[in-house]
Amino acid sequence: MDPRTRQEDFINLNPIQAGGRTSAKTRVLVNSYIDGYAVCDQCKGALSEIPKPDIVGLKMTMIDFLGVNTVRFTHGAREAKYLVMENLLESGDSVVVDENAHYSTFIGIEKVKAKKFIVSNTGYPKFKIIPEKYEQVIKKVKKETNKFPKLLVITQVDGHYGNFVNVKKINEIAKKYDIPLLVNSAYLVGRAEVKLNKLGADFIIGSGHKSFGAPGNVGILGVSNKWAEKLFQRSSDFPKKEVDSLGCTARNAAIVGLAVAMESINQRVKKWDEEIKKANWLVNKLERLGGFKLLGGKPKQHDLIYLETPVINKIAQSHRKRGYFFASALKDKGIIGIRPGLSKAFKLSTYGLTWSQVEYVYKVIKDVAKGE
Amino acid sequence: MDPRTRQEDFINLNPIQAGGRTSAKTRVLVNSYIDGYAVCDQCKGALSEIPKPDIVGLKMTMIDFLGVNTVRFTHGAREAKYLVMENLLESGDSVVVDENAHYSTFIGIEKVKAKKFIVSNTGYPKFKIIPEKYEQVIKKVKKETNKFPKLLVITQVDGHYGNFVNVKKINEIAKKYDIPLLVNSAYLVGRAEVKLNKLGADFIIGSGHKSFGAPGNVGILGVSNKWAEKLFQRSSDFPKKEVDSLGCTARNAAIVGLAVAMESINQRVKKWDEEIKKANWLVNKLERLGGFKLLGGKPKQHDLIYLETPVINKIAQSHRKRGYFFASALKDKGIIGIRPGLSKAFKLSTYGLTWSQVEYVYKVIKDVAKGE
Repeated sequence: MDPRTRQEDFINLNPIQAGGRTSAKTRVLVNSYIDGYAVCDQCKGALSEIPKPDIVGLKMTMIDFLGVNTVRFTHGAREAKYLVMENLLESGDSVVVDENAHYSTFIGIEKVKAKKFIVSNTGYPKFKIIPEKYEQVIKKVKKETNKFPKLLVITQVDGHYGNFVNVKKINEIAKKYDIPLLVNSAYLVGRAEVKLNKLGADFIIGSGHKSFGAPGNVGILGVSNKWAEKLFQRSSDFPKKEVDSLGCTARNAAIVGLAVAMESINQRVKKWDEEIKKANWLVNKLERLGGFKLLGGKPKQHDLIYLETPVINKIAQSHRKRGYFFASALKDKGIIGIRPGLSKAFKLSTYGLTWSQVEYVYKVIKDVAKGE
Repeated sequence: MDPRTRQEDFINLNPIQAGGRTSAKTRVLVNSYIDGYAVCDQCKGALSEIPKPDIVGLKMTMIDFLGVNTVRFTHGAREAKYLVMENLLESGDSVVVDENAHYSTFIGIEKVKAKKFIVSNTGYPKFKIIPEKYEQVIKKVKKETNKFPKLLVITQVDGHYGNFVNVKKINEIAKKYDIPLLVNSAYLVGRAEVKLNKLGADFIIGSGHKSFGAPGNVGILGVSNKWAEKLFQRSSDFPKKEVDSLGCTARNAAIVGLAVAMESINQRVKKWDEEIKKANWLVNKLERLGGFKLLGGKPKQHDLIYLETPVINKIAQSHRKRGYFFASALKDKGIIGIRPGLSKAFKLSTYGLTWSQVEYVYKVIKDVAKGE
């Protein structure tokens, strides 16, 4: 196997990789803790009580950062969502979920054999989730099944359009009907500060490798007080071990990387406004050029940008590389991360780029669009 | 956080860490793939189909190494065991399991709400699992519940005594009653070659970080042909995604580290006989000294050694550090990994040590036992 050097050799616009880039400090420390059970040197049976590396400290910092009463680290955001679902939902129960949710949210519902009722987005071109629609769908569930849904799920920022949803409004509806609300913030919290106690919801999901600059895989499940006992039941035979996590979860690179990333989380989230500015600057410049159209809400409130690009598609029609010409032309200029083959529409992210890199990305895309 | 240097600065006897030590090559390559979604550069929706890093190749190599029809990589051995259990067992079903099983095996059974029937070990001092007892327990299940058990579980080498079990004999019983047999080989396969097709059983569980010298967390689930379709059902909405794994599992350090480790797996397993010799040499030398007694089967067929140590315990009685004196005395001589506080009995492993290190370990323990 050869080492990966894409991050060093190119400007990488792949949105899924933008928030999981690690710092030099993280890489050094993770490397020292890389062996199979390296974090277990001082374990006395519970991962979250390990003093060195300081997982106790990580847990306390994360509880504070998320504004929750307790937190658990899982193998990923999907596992955190599923842990809530398998506790709250029985086969046949109804759950209300936004259309823009990540595929793993839908698979979690499928695995627990619950019935999903979807809050549709507004369709082309903004694809927005309107909080008020949650009430309509709750009423629909009641009408069709004669019962209220057992859980509401909202994707705070989705991975298709990078749309930001007003969760507070959905939580007002959740409270009105007394239905627990799960906030999937995998694409937001860690890039920005998100506090569950300010949202008022019941569960918040984060992802170390998606938004905290951590190596992962590591998911974060923050819960408000009333849920801790129901969700984290201990084994009857092994009282230090929790049943649903099978006793222990994210060790080594995953947990150490998150701990290191959290040491500078306050500096990281302070940069969020500037990140949004970069995204909007690029979108505005490209739209003014003509032949580029933002899909999703405008202005951007997140770095994930989904563009419809008739100007690129027009070139692809007569290019010998067809749709692949675009990613190929960008790669020649040192830019990667646009999915090869796509020319009608594609996703990118400006997260973590310098302003001069963003300007360079604009210039390269502009030149390609002009056939230069 | 400070870097961990225990592995460089000390001889480490901790059995849980012995088989998960990474090579320099693994650390370099893992470091290059450490970012959150680094393995996803060329992903088209299925982890096991990624060509670079060569996860396709890893999968094929592992299928061959395990003598199975198909394989899946999970977040750990416990998740692999649970994937089998949640598919084969319903609440209230019976499962037969050896008394020496890992706690996570029992928690898996608890989570799926199955009823466990235990095959007892032979007790002090050998604590052996006798294969023939599986038949007695199967009959007991039939008598008590009027049904046969739905699954048999055997821990091929356990983590308490390092006892090796003759799985073939258990499989003959499994076949006689037509009950699927799961072999938990987390402590063996990867140190040694274990082939499911030679054992004849249905499922084999491995652990990258426990026995393959991989960083982890990564579990390995190998299955014989008839089980692939039942276990790995695809999502109805996302046809590339498997439901029980929630669509994707061990990425980055976990999967890359295992792939690198597998490049030299054939050389690794060739050293197994020599590893056994080291373990037996140390046990024999200590037993001859007096005041040390091996718990578990003899001679050792595994590097995990559990010793009863009245001679150490006697010193602890009158030592100002009590039981902690022993780990402390060893640490002064550059040896760690014996659980601090234990003096009556403790576990250690000689895996991966050089012969001169094993001799040094013997000399240090001997001197401490003699009060020198």
